Amino acid sequence: MTHLSNTVQDNRISLLGLGPMGSALGGALLKQGHRLTVWNRTPGKADDLVAKGAQQARTVAEAATASTITIVCLNDYPTMYRVLDGAAAELEGKVLVNLNSGTPSEARAALAWSAERGIDYLEGAIMVPPHLIGEPGAVILYSGDQGVFDRHRTTLASLGDPRYLGADIGLAVLYNTALLDMMYTTINGWLHATALLDSANVSAQKFAELALGWFMPTVVDYASLTEQAPDLDAAHYPGELGTLAMNLNALEHITRTSEEQGVHSDHPRLMKELAERAIAEGHGSQNYFAVYELFKKTDSAAAAHRAFLATTAGGHAKSL
Amino acid sequence: MTHLSNTVQDNRISLLGLGPMGSALGGALLKQGHRLTVWNRTPGKADDLVAKGAQQARTVAEAATASTITIVCLNDYPTMYRVLDGAAAELEGKVLVNLNSGTPSEARAALAWSAERGIDYLEGAIMVPPHLIGEPGAVILYSGDQGVFDRHRTTLASLGDPRYLGADIGLAVLYNTALLDMMYTTINGWLHATALLDSANVSAQKFAELALGWFMPTVVDYASLTEQAPDLDAAHYPGELGTLAMNLNALEHITRTSEEQGVHSDHPRLMKELAERAIAEGHGSQNYFAVYELFKKTDSAAAAHRAFLATTAGGHAKSL
Repeated sequence: MTHLSNTVQDNRISLLGLGPMGSALGGALLKQGHRLTVWNRTPGKADDLVAKGAQQARTVAEAATASTITIVCLNDYPTMYRVLDGAAAELEGKVLVNLNSGTPSEARAALAWSAERGIDYLEGAIMVPPHLIGEPGAVILYSGDQGVFDRHRTTLASLGDPRYLGADIGLAVLYNTALLDMMYTTINGWLHATALLDSANVSAQKFAELALGWFMPTVVDYASLTEQAPDLDAAHYPGELGTLAMNLNALEHITRTSEEQGVHSDHPRLMKELAERAIAEGHGSQNYFAVYELFKKTDSAAAAHRAFLATTAGGHAKSL
Repeated sequence: MTHLSNTVQDNRISLLGLGPMGSALGGALLKQGHRLTVWNRTPGKADDLVAKGAQQARTVAEAATASTITIVCLNDYPTMYRVLDGAAAELEGKVLVNLNSGTPSEARAALAWSAERGIDYLEGAIMVPPHLIGEPGAVILYSGDQGVFDRHRTTLASLGDPRYLGADIGLAVLYNTALLDMMYTTINGWLHATALLDSANVSAQKFAELALGWFMPTVVDYASLTEQAPDLDAAHYPGELGTLAMNLNALEHITRTSEEQGVHSDHPRLMKELAERAIAEGHGSQNYFAVYELFKKTDSAAAAHRAFLATTAGGHAKSL
């Protein structure tokens, strides 16, 4: 009756790719008592895991044969196809879990590639650095067939905290991309603000006291932003407490001050231009969050880029 | 012996400008028992404060005469000069506190204007919306002569929580600008990330659960950023845990995904280009925070803008 069981125990697991992240994944799997087979293009990188009990496969096909589930942690999708090319037959009827990063369209292409070869395919996105792999807080986002995910949840839990996002195969990498987008943007905002103060000889430490010790946690706290989410979904931007037109005034000051103080001003200027465009599109008496309507649209530069590709490289443009 | 006392009691205070913020300031001053004289270009806006006990001045000169300290809350610096022009004699030997927003160079010009007329000048930047004025958490940033600030600290505390930043007159508006810069940037980062998920039909509410409920408070927490501040001051960007070159890979994914998903991609592209430029300038093996070195410099667009102004409008360019 094992076929009725929702979860399977993947005692044998194969792992392809032993960079810093792959090695951390292998270490966590060994620690949880799995029988691990590893492969890496440069064989020497397996030494540490072999010393801890892993089997080393000489070929990708050998690794794919050894287990019912194969985890891939390589640089990118082109590398993955190159690595898996000679082992498709050995993977047939088995599970492939890809932890490369890329774009949703690359994930969709990889799902199609796997489906053609009779391989069950899951996408994962690792949200923590290697040294946290295997810890309870090590969130890894997954998307793809829920049945496949549920059957292997226990195995995936050996790597950290698996979070299933949905059947759309592109979701894991899309969430990953969006979260990193927020991270870089927020860090850049802090660095740019710090550069403004540096221009007046105020140290980063001194500015951080007020900026990170008081302003951000109090005024831009994540709970308050969360409260705005339903209004974004409803495109509801009431302007009673402040309008986009008022915010444009502040964005003009930020841009002009950056110029006057001799610090980088491209980003504040972009924010100012976005607000101006939102006002031109009729959002001036709504609140600042109405710029969300602009973010949902392709900007002219990207559109021009796509138009260029469409005329010069038709085949490539299809993936954009 | 009163001249030895550090603090003076400004029983009589004048207030120019009764928009929503000015009216809130007036209300707080009356609540603290000050004798308030108000002036506004449109006299009717004073009615509420007059009903609560304020004196209404018919002219700015009359308002300036009534008190030893005058608080100005107008739209901008040009408006302030227009309003104060006929009352400079009445302000001589007294204190002027300006709560307009603008740029540090405008603040420096206003200090020079005041000094020429024998007026003690303080700059303030209000960090809260009108309805919080007078509350203990209503932070107002001040810069200018510390002796003037210290003598009037008690009066200024009637408006909220006064924070003195330093003698450089531009600091209040510079801090204000930098903090708003961080705020808009962080909000835009969240909105752009949300737009990415919207392109896959994931709601803002659903994305907020993971993005604001887990990722940002855990991975981009303000305490961790604060720990980086000394390294920014020391231009110390060790790359052992991750390099700018590795981060560029993620920024390329974010840009490409934005294009593929049909959402606005100008901002991720700008972040990618910044990372590329930092690598070209030799920071590739340092960590991501090395882009701070770029933020401290004028970007080419702003430099071109200044060069343009220098050749076409020499006088104006001096202020840039």
